Amino acid sequence: MTTTSTDTALEQFLDNTRDERLESYKEFLRIPSIGALPEHAADCRAAAEWIATDLRRIGIENVSVEDTVGSPVVYGDWLHAGDAPTVIVYCHYDVQPVDPLDLWDSPPFEPVVVDGSMLARGAADDKGQLHAHLRALEALFATRGGPPVNLRFVFEGNEESTPVPLDGWLAANHDRLAADFVLISDTGFFEGNLPAITISLRGMMYAQIDVIGSDLDLHSGSYGGVVDNPANVLVGILSSLKGPDGRVLIPGFYDDVVALTAEERRMLEELPFDEEALRETIGVPALAGESGFGVLERKGARPTFDINGLWSGFQGTGAKTIIPGHAHAKVSCRLVAAQDPDRVFAALKAFVEDNAPPTMHIRVERLGGGRPHLTPIDHPAMRAAARALEATFGRAPVYIREGGSIPVAASFDVSLGLPVILMGFTQPDDHAHAPNEWMDLNNYETSIRTVVRMWDEVARLDRSELATGR
Amino acid sequence: MTTTSTDTALEQFLDNTRDERLESYKEFLRIPSIGALPEHAADCRAAAEWIATDLRRIGIENVSVEDTVGSPVVYGDWLHAGDAPTVIVYCHYDVQPVDPLDLWDSPPFEPVVVDGSMLARGAADDKGQLHAHLRALEALFATRGGPPVNLRFVFEGNEESTPVPLDGWLAANHDRLAADFVLISDTGFFEGNLPAITISLRGMMYAQIDVIGSDLDLHSGSYGGVVDNPANVLVGILSSLKGPDGRVLIPGFYDDVVALTAEERRMLEELPFDEEALRETIGVPALAGESGFGVLERKGARPTFDINGLWSGFQGTGAKTIIPGHAHAKVSCRLVAAQDPDRVFAALKAFVEDNAPPTMHIRVERLGGGRPHLTPIDHPAMRAAARALEATFGRAPVYIREGGSIPVAASFDVSLGLPVILMGFTQPDDHAHAPNEWMDLNNYETSIRTVVRMWDEVARLDRSELATGR
Repeated sequence: MTTTSTDTALEQFLDNTRDERLESYKEFLRIPSIGALPEHAADCRAAAEWIATDLRRIGIENVSVEDTVGSPVVYGDWLHAGDAPTVIVYCHYDVQPVDPLDLWDSPPFEPVVVDGSMLARGAADDKGQLHAHLRALEALFATRGGPPVNLRFVFEGNEESTPVPLDGWLAANHDRLAADFVLISDTGFFEGNLPAITISLRGMMYAQIDVIGSDLDLHSGSYGGVVDNPANVLVGILSSLKGPDGRVLIPGFYDDVVALTAEERRMLEELPFDEEALRETIGVPALAGESGFGVLERKGARPTFDINGLWSGFQGTGAKTIIPGHAHAKVSCRLVAAQDPDRVFAALKAFVEDNAPPTMHIRVERLGGGRPHLTPIDHPAMRAAARALEATFGRAPVYIREGGSIPVAASFDVSLGLPVILMGFTQPDDHAHAPNEWMDLNNYETSIRTVVRMWDEVARLDRSELATGR
Repeated sequence: MTTTSTDTALEQFLDNTRDERLESYKEFLRIPSIGALPEHAADCRAAAEWIATDLRRIGIENVSVEDTVGSPVVYGDWLHAGDAPTVIVYCHYDVQPVDPLDLWDSPPFEPVVVDGSMLARGAADDKGQLHAHLRALEALFATRGGPPVNLRFVFEGNEESTPVPLDGWLAANHDRLAADFVLISDTGFFEGNLPAITISLRGMMYAQIDVIGSDLDLHSGSYGGVVDNPANVLVGILSSLKGPDGRVLIPGFYDDVVALTAEERRMLEELPFDEEALRETIGVPALAGESGFGVLERKGARPTFDINGLWSGFQGTGAKTIIPGHAHAKVSCRLVAAQDPDRVFAALKAFVEDNAPPTMHIRVERLGGGRPHLTPIDHPAMRAAARALEATFGRAPVYIREGGSIPVAASFDVSLGLPVILMGFTQPDDHAHAPNEWMDLNNYETSIRTVVRMWDEVARLDRSELATGR
């Protein structure tokens, strides 16, 4: 263990309780809390009650299991740290389904320790991280009478299925969630198990484009050259939206994109990243993207335009000589920096409609989206997290710009308007949504020390700096 | 009846036998010879035998019902016209299926005369036309001892399903099909029941384009901007193949297209054709096609590039954030004049492959095709047909350039290398493949006189001109 904690009593406590801690971890993992499957609703409630019982036993107050339209939210708080900052801690207790079962080396809800790792569904995502937070708390209460900061806990059971229940709960509980920032432990480390903090997530704009010609497919002999072909019109529209250099051609698209600073780009370039290995894993002849940017910058700091689905006319075997009656595409943009999904959708719709031929009916419909997320590296809470990781894992974390979105980060952002710190401890290849999910027990044990150290670091922060540092 | 036949005896015969002719027509229509349905195989054979019996009774020789891999071919000939030209007459006795049955005003195989039309499946397509040929023949034998030309009859039973059986039979019987040209009666008149001859058919080249990236769909957040998107690459390829002006951009595509002469264009422009009515029937906001050409010229005398099918990634309801692993298109070109499907496919394949990005695997595969067909208006047999139509229907025919293909025309062309005359007598809205198929009895009766007159016209032709006039 590479911990460098200087709190001898707390370290002693954690050493002495290791066996019972692993037993508790296993007990929690045995509850098959698959949030997406209705037949596991009682299991999800059991997991929520298990957490509530644990929180109460530790010394957390106002603990309640609260109904939502999905699995319950577990709330609890401890607000006796005076003027110290208040942090909302978020994890989720629901887990992914376990199919295909026959690919598991051992039953998913019968946790076992194999080669220094806990093997079970949820060991990493996210019950392992939730459990580590509870254990850090327990150690602080046992050795110091409580944490040095004010804490509110929000543990939910619908993260793997839909954000709707949490969104509703957050909106309804806005008033009792006063805090300085949110800590989400549901992410992981970089390749090679490098400690990492996810500083940004891309946003999204998702839309459907429909090109409608005749009600029915037409005979391509009788009508070829007589009417426009919706599929041809659609490919014309779609190809006008992105150039062969990977640059999106929607007018104004890049207006709110912020270029990385030389320093930010250097940090990305210094990450130990093997392009060729990635290419081979994906199985394409060559990687590709917006010219002038490296792979990690393209993934984390540049927006995209991708076709997600495409359909029109005949898709069977052989030849059918029709002009399709209609053609459709699902398209989406990943967004960065200050890009706004509403504005991007409006620009897409206007561009498509302005350039549409008068020969077809064309519809552009919005299907979803969310804003990009970024917490600057120099935000005080980010710096506190970095110091906590370096003190406990023995090296400064790297900063990840994630290409995807994490809906819960957006949920907190939208509901509470608070900075969000994404600090998690799982290994990148933890099989989180696959058979044989695992958590490295060294990461698990060290993360308990990291959380303790994080609260010590946060306790020293100036609350006014936290508010303005975002 | 607008007949202007000058053969009084023959006209007398036709007048006297009208009732019995309609009875025979009905008897033939009562045989439910649906070639595409295996349970009607015996009916198809019965129809073939009905024809054979009729041919023998009339005086045709060497009549036989010959097995194929599908329904039988009926062959017969009469070769006693000395040096007069020899013509192969083609019609088909199989009919379309009758579903949906509840939309028929009377049972499809119980023919009735309603408002001067024969109503039954096959009344027009093509048993009515076949029957008219038999009746013309009968009248010639009854009043003159036989036709003034040498005739070979090929009546098949698979036209509505697959050309394979006839193709095989033609190839195997090449030697006994010596002739000067082929007369196919399986087409119809122009809008408004204007007598018409179909002078050209477009050919076709059909292909599939596959763009293959990774084996599996990828997460559009994690990989958007990192790899090329097969669907985006495909729409780029497809939109590079045709310009917004409707012009095909495959290099060399127009090399073998022959522009219409001013006279040919004038003939098309003089056809009574209502663009707005067509637009309304199709239901599109506007007609469209290659700029600089009218609708009928685009349909009949210009080649096309159409997407027939398109598919990639997610096609369901809502949003799925994937980069599809692969993307596919079915595409085809209608061809005219001297365009060769082999050459067009090779040009397409080379253009796509030469311009393909190195980031994806791209495959261009041929799925079918056929050459365009044209018999010039001034071909002696064409002029004979025009004179016969004008003499009997009272006005010169118009010349139709058909946008589609008629496989049987290609079959004769490929097997025998003979000029093909497409002279048929049905009304354009005859419901040939729909419920309530009908044949105008005036067209039917007059067509018998047209066939007689055609043979008289052909008898006067110089055989050497027929051979070179193509």
